[in-house]
Amino acid sequence: MKISILSIGNEILKGTIVNSNTAIIGKEFLKLGITPSFQATVNDDKNDIIGILNYITSISDVIIITGGLGPTTDDLTVKTIADFFNLKLYKDNSVVENIRKRLQHRAIDKAKDVIVSKQNLKQAYVPEGCEVLQNANGTAPGIFIKVDNKRIFLLPGPPFEMKPMLIEKVIPEINSCIKEKIYFEILTTVGIGESDLQAKIDKISGENKDIEFAYRAIPGTCELTIYGKNKNTVQNEADKIRKILGLSVLNKMFNNLIEEVAYYLNKRRLSLSTAESCTGGMIASKITDLPGVSNFFKGGAVVYSNELKTNLLGVKPETLDKFGAVSQECAEEMINGLCKNLKSETGIAITGIAGPDGGTDDKPVGLVYIAVKVTDKLIVKKIIFSGNRNIIRIRTVYSALDILRRMLIEN
Amino acid sequence: MKISILSIGNEILKGTIVNSNTAIIGKEFLKLGITPSFQATVNDDKNDIIGILNYITSISDVIIITGGLGPTTDDLTVKTIADFFNLKLYKDNSVVENIRKRLQHRAIDKAKDVIVSKQNLKQAYVPEGCEVLQNANGTAPGIFIKVDNKRIFLLPGPPFEMKPMLIEKVIPEINSCIKEKIYFEILTTVGIGESDLQAKIDKISGENKDIEFAYRAIPGTCELTIYGKNKNTVQNEADKIRKILGLSVLNKMFNNLIEEVAYYLNKRRLSLSTAESCTGGMIASKITDLPGVSNFFKGGAVVYSNELKTNLLGVKPETLDKFGAVSQECAEEMINGLCKNLKSETGIAITGIAGPDGGTDDKPVGLVYIAVKVTDKLIVKKIIFSGNRNIIRIRTVYSALDILRRMLIEN
Repeated sequence: MKISILSIGNEILKGTIVNSNTAIIGKEFLKLGITPSFQATVNDDKNDIIGILNYITSISDVIIITGGLGPTTDDLTVKTIADFFNLKLYKDNSVVENIRKRLQHRAIDKAKDVIVSKQNLKQAYVPEGCEVLQNANGTAPGIFIKVDNKRIFLLPGPPFEMKPMLIEKVIPEINSCIKEKIYFEILTTVGIGESDLQAKIDKISGENKDIEFAYRAIPGTCELTIYGKNKNTVQNEADKIRKILGLSVLNKMFNNLIEEVAYYLNKRRLSLSTAESCTGGMIASKITDLPGVSNFFKGGAVVYSNELKTNLLGVKPETLDKFGAVSQECAEEMINGLCKNLKSETGIAITGIAGPDGGTDDKPVGLVYIAVKVTDKLIVKKIIFSGNRNIIRIRTVYSALDILRRMLIEN
Repeated sequence: MKISILSIGNEILKGTIVNSNTAIIGKEFLKLGITPSFQATVNDDKNDIIGILNYITSISDVIIITGGLGPTTDDLTVKTIADFFNLKLYKDNSVVENIRKRLQHRAIDKAKDVIVSKQNLKQAYVPEGCEVLQNANGTAPGIFIKVDNKRIFLLPGPPFEMKPMLIEKVIPEINSCIKEKIYFEILTTVGIGESDLQAKIDKISGENKDIEFAYRAIPGTCELTIYGKNKNTVQNEADKIRKILGLSVLNKMFNNLIEEVAYYLNKRRLSLSTAESCTGGMIASKITDLPGVSNFFKGGAVVYSNELKTNLLGVKPETLDKFGAVSQECAEEMINGLCKNLKSETGIAITGIAGPDGGTDDKPVGLVYIAVKVTDKLIVKKIIFSGNRNIIRIRTVYSALDILRRMLIEN
């Protein structure tokens, strides 16, 4: 089965938005073990759309078209596509009703009936014989057409409108046509780079021709998808990899590092606080991305200046003078002062040089001391990270959270 | 002049990476006032590449091909494209030398001469008659071919390798072919949503048919590009818009909000610190994204728990009892305690409900108090933000920094 994606919209070609829909669609199909073989982007222009439709219909069984369904006069997609397949448009009353509901929901004065404008009404015209996919998050309906032995899906452009239709309609429809079912399992790894992970997986599973792998690097973590035609084979291989990689794989129960850290802190009823110099609040910010952390997270100090390292954490001026702010000694005083002053049972303290300036031969840009305390256990790690300021800071955040996670699991 | 982009690589179609190159290319062309009319993505497969080349050559004067130039056996792009245009490949010695240098640079033992592998040597084969674009950041050379009255650029896939070649070679080459030069000016706005901005611009400049606009929303800010064929017209319109929008437009000198805030704090030799509850360190983290802020930024407190609001900032327990943590009174005590305890001349304090839980009828999710102090001037703003937890937090960060910026400029 050949799948193509057609993205319609001037914004993508102008570079004002990044085409994230293609990645979203690709990832969902990967779970079925299929990869789209073609993707194209054209402006919302009749001739451009017809041109690429001629090509795309010649190479595809399934065509997923995103964008071009808005209410403005520029949006010619539905009419052009219906004409291309010789389908007439009709006004669908269920769509009119959905549009009215959506507009009413958005209205400032909810008691007053909204009027559906002529522009919006245009969105209710759909090709005859199609299946309408109602839009829970916008006014443009999705459209599913079976024509000339092909399946064609028209989906709205905004990802939060597109994705629900993709998952609820497109993926099940395609899944039902796949003769050979593909099984998959996803492992999220942490503390191991993508190329190192690939090398390890090659060594563990390189001989197994019944499974395939896909890698997706996300800052600080890597998502490994294992897929194959036999459920048990995939399952067994996943278990084997999980066992060998050990703590480098997040527990299945959790979507990310913070969720796993939160689980253990809550389970053990331990409080957490943070003291950050070069990361300047990024760790605290990352932890509080997750709702509900007030159960264990007290907060902390951003001690960018030496003055605050002393004032808030009690780091001795002599220590700063003798060893400098970026030192094992300072990191230790920071974590001990933090846990003591804030009455916290666990803590993370960071001091380092994120650059681009401030590095020396002895203490280069990228040098970071990560101190983590869990009750009476204390670890201070010295790491030299590579990358620019932003990458050094991000790597520090994930390394620190991973050290805490491992200490919580192991102790 | 019709410009098309061809992206080659399985990772984009698998969804493991987002196609950011298309956006980078689109944005650079927008500065010349041109928009690519077509973009396609194919796997690194000979037949797929030939299929789309047949289509793309029929509609384009300029073709920019990215990706597929790596050293692995999968990368068939150069050979396939050379065959398509009936060009022979030859080994280019300047490329061999560049590859050797790059590998030497990456080697662990820099004293020992590296051996250029057969795989890497493959990258030195380029089509006859082409211009080689040396790669300062990788081993794959860029290639520029003029054939059949078309300009074809082959650029490496990684954005940091692609972008320098785009800016140094592709853009000047295309610019020199443009008969009618386009002028542009970019305004960065803050504190005004994209659709409100569009409505305002329509009102200010809707009648002016000699200029066009492009909008790009970036969290908290919006980038407005004004372009037209006459330099004075563009300049005058930009000045007019700048004047009407006033403080909603960042000063030309700065790339972002933090840079402008940093400029005024440095100029006036004022220190800054932060106290964050629901934003949990995001403001401090945003400020420290910019290098060199230690001149004015002391750091601050992440006071996620009420205990720390009292312990670090001296918020009275009675205030928390009587008015709650999310109140005008608490915000005022937070900012006053912050500036006093940390001996800071300016400060930002945040308390709010980012959700999804914790909202009540009186104090809904999205309610945030932003307190900003500049020497003896204090402002506390109550705002109810819409959106999910992440969006509420981001909007709070930018609003707070914008309030500080306006106070620094106005006072």
